[in-house]
Amino acid sequence: MDVVDVLCKRRSTRSFTCDPVSDELIQKLLIAAMAAPTAANSQPWEFIVVNDPEALSIIREEMVFARYKAPLAIVVCGNMKLAFKGPGKEMWVQDCSAATENMLIAATGLGLGSVWIGVYPLDSNVNVVRKILDMPNEVVPLNIIYFGYSEEVKEARSRYNEKRVYFNTYDRNRKHRSKDKPKIGHY
Amino acid sequence: MDVVDVLCKRRSTRSFTCDPVSDELIQKLLIAAMAAPTAANSQPWEFIVVNDPEALSIIREEMVFARYKAPLAIVVCGNMKLAFKGPGKEMWVQDCSAATENMLIAATGLGLGSVWIGVYPLDSNVNVVRKILDMPNEVVPLNIIYFGYSEEVKEARSRYNEKRVYFNTYDRNRKHRSKDKPKIGHY
Repeated sequence: MDVVDVLCKRRSTRSFTCDPVSDELIQKLLIAAMAAPTAANSQPWEFIVVNDPEALSIIREEMVFARYKAPLAIVVCGNMKLAFKGPGKEMWVQDCSAATENMLIAATGLGLGSVWIGVYPLDSNVNVVRKILDMPNEVVPLNIIYFGYSEEVKEARSRYNEKRVYFNTYDRNRKHRSKDKPKIGHY
Repeated sequence: MDVVDVLCKRRSTRSFTCDPVSDELIQKLLIAAMAAPTAANSQPWEFIVVNDPEALSIIREEMVFARYKAPLAIVVCGNMKLAFKGPGKEMWVQDCSAATENMLIAATGLGLGSVWIGVYPLDSNVNVVRKILDMPNEVVPLNIIYFGYSEEVKEARSRYNEKRVYFNTYDRNRKHRSKDKPKIGHY
């Protein structure tokens, strides 16, 4: 297995079968998440595993952008009591995003589909998720990740775009146009 | 190859050999980066590949936290002209962090070591990197990632910590103490 192939096989899945994700696979996703690097080893993360059908149903009802029916959601959170203080405080977003990406890649390797639903920094989303999962104010939900066995078949691809790559210095004269943005890449 | 093993093999490397990273591997890192998901497919990223020894030397001199001698740096940037407008603007940080983590994982699979040096949101760091690489104000350097062949041997591990995992609802009574933070995990 070429690791770049696995990264390119990670595609967003929005249609899942009813098959549950086993506890063993859930633990593997969490091991993957917490293998990510964090700024100064701060490990500011917490994870809420949601696989109770009623809890999932409430998330679907309350969150406009999270209406996909999946057997498992993991909510990745930053705990401000564990995060940096001062000007580096927002580093928790990068740490928790790296942990999230690790889960998506692990899922791909384990035969699961996944989709990343952004929550933070949109206050309306943050407040809804906090209320549903009874989270205190110092815990910030970054996203909701749905996992399950995919009903979709998508080909591997990257959005690789040489216009976004510079060598040794920036080029202020290069223009970006939306038509240059690859829809489906060749990789 | 188990993908979770690769994720756990990704460890920060701060000592590199002098061997250069080939153009072929640099392109694979960039393909991996741009295979990451982005909010509403915004693809707000740009990448500055730095492998000119003089440019690397200037980064080492000017950046207190980036003094490691590596043959290759890739600076991951968000371009505010490509990012969301309005309250979701900061989503670029999550998109570019996922792209960064993809590069670190690809590097591990390709036999390279790597280390993530945080730049944003620390203004002093952002300004130094912008000046060195002649970047305009609408382009924000998120980090500097060093790559190369590692001189260190580190065992695979996760920081997996069951105290950071909740099921179906948050538990406000759970206390986190710094002694609970794993230094070296068992995974």
